[in-house]
Amino acid sequence: MPQSTQTAVLVIGGAEDKIHGREILHTFFRRSGGAEAKIGILPCASREPSIIGDKYRYIFQSMGAREVEVLDIRDRKQGDDEHYRAFAEGATGIFMTGGDQLRLCGMLADTAIMEQIRQRVRQGTVTLAGTSAGAAVMGHHMIAGGGSGESPNRSLVDMATGLSILPHIIVDQHFHNRNRMARLISAVSLHPDRIGIGIDEDTCAMFEDDGTIEILGKGTVTIVDPQDISHNSQPHIESSDPVSLHNLRVHILSHGDRYNLHNHFPQPTVSPAAAS
Amino acid sequence: MPQSTQTAVLVIGGAEDKIHGREILHTFFRRSGGAEAKIGILPCASREPSIIGDKYRYIFQSMGAREVEVLDIRDRKQGDDEHYRAFAEGATGIFMTGGDQLRLCGMLADTAIMEQIRQRVRQGTVTLAGTSAGAAVMGHHMIAGGGSGESPNRSLVDMATGLSILPHIIVDQHFHNRNRMARLISAVSLHPDRIGIGIDEDTCAMFEDDGTIEILGKGTVTIVDPQDISHNSQPHIESSDPVSLHNLRVHILSHGDRYNLHNHFPQPTVSPAAAS
Repeated sequence: MPQSTQTAVLVIGGAEDKIHGREILHTFFRRSGGAEAKIGILPCASREPSIIGDKYRYIFQSMGAREVEVLDIRDRKQGDDEHYRAFAEGATGIFMTGGDQLRLCGMLADTAIMEQIRQRVRQGTVTLAGTSAGAAVMGHHMIAGGGSGESPNRSLVDMATGLSILPHIIVDQHFHNRNRMARLISAVSLHPDRIGIGIDEDTCAMFEDDGTIEILGKGTVTIVDPQDISHNSQPHIESSDPVSLHNLRVHILSHGDRYNLHNHFPQPTVSPAAAS
Repeated sequence: MPQSTQTAVLVIGGAEDKIHGREILHTFFRRSGGAEAKIGILPCASREPSIIGDKYRYIFQSMGAREVEVLDIRDRKQGDDEHYRAFAEGATGIFMTGGDQLRLCGMLADTAIMEQIRQRVRQGTVTLAGTSAGAAVMGHHMIAGGGSGESPNRSLVDMATGLSILPHIIVDQHFHNRNRMARLISAVSLHPDRIGIGIDEDTCAMFEDDGTIEILGKGTVTIVDPQDISHNSQPHIESSDPVSLHNLRVHILSHGDRYNLHNHFPQPTVSPAAAS
């Protein structure tokens, strides 16, 4: 990783632009070191790992990355494989594709390679990105599935354990596109010590090492912050009763906005006029 | 109206139970005076006003109301009709059915009968209910239509002028059932001096004369309160750019919860255990 490159964790809501401006993927490429980047692609969430892996390999190669490899791990044993671990140890960027988040966790949770990646993220020596299912796994509590079109209630959402890269958040992806506000509220109601983060398609919440998030892409990132809640009906009980949850703080963030995870404050983008 | 009956405005999210417990409709019946009630049904939102009018007439008659009449106004001139005005003047309850909110406003806005009803509601001498389209018209700013499945943005919602019964709120109905959070947030972003109120099906926000709301029924009422917002991108400009809206206060309220419109505070339902 070149000294000047600032690592980050890019949590992408799925369906990111792969053809035109490719803003989000290009930001990942830059944050992985640009022309110096050594990128590993983890396609384990997908049932067609070689197809999706090759797609991203082509993209990052065409951007000019020095080295790109698909880490096509197909069972848990391969998660301890020496070759893959050596590649991940020297990688400057790791990209987790979409697919099924339960499949991804089932294959990688507690493997040597995942432990190594998590540690390197914590040390700020590798940039990590995940899109769709690859985004869903970021928290300790993970949304594995759920419904829409109902009043928020605890049976609307299926929770599981994620990869704990960013343990304090609960991610939902394809967020407004698939109308997932009610299920994220239901998840936050079950785990009111976390912050819910709903990320729209072609949109990215980029977590910097200093605890700020910056928004990239064309949609919104919705923060559902239960820090000040004054009432939560039957926390920790799954039921189909409608949730009662008072005093949520909600932010709708879009391109250029920032959010500070430490003090829970959002900051609007600085407009060109205001900056000049 | 019997002296002992407290009037209210019942804003119903549509699809209220008409067969079994009928909690919401029965509450309207009681708040209209019960056996002493004289109820007028306004079916003007519907393209089949006599069918829907008769349905509600049958319901309130079967509950034991003293007098029920369908005020089957079919054009604006009939809104000044002496017979209908005389009935509305003596009515203890007025019920507005579902259908199309633009049709309802087109027919009734600024007519003599509507002016009379609005004044009597303000004086607390009649109980008013509206379901679905009949709920949508309650505010000054009215959601006339819109989409879902997109990042919140101002072109996601079509605004029009409502009947201003409760001018300080913007109502959305069939709320979580039809995934309308993004459009209500978009509406609030356009009119940040109002409070957004999203009401699920078979659910009612009952506005008392003292400025409190009580929740009835099986779903949730979502309050989107922009009172404390610290940032709102381009307010009052319609555009398809994603909204940026920071520091919304959101409450998910369910059966028995209350909300105070004056101080913006929610209060949880008093559980039987806590009350004893």
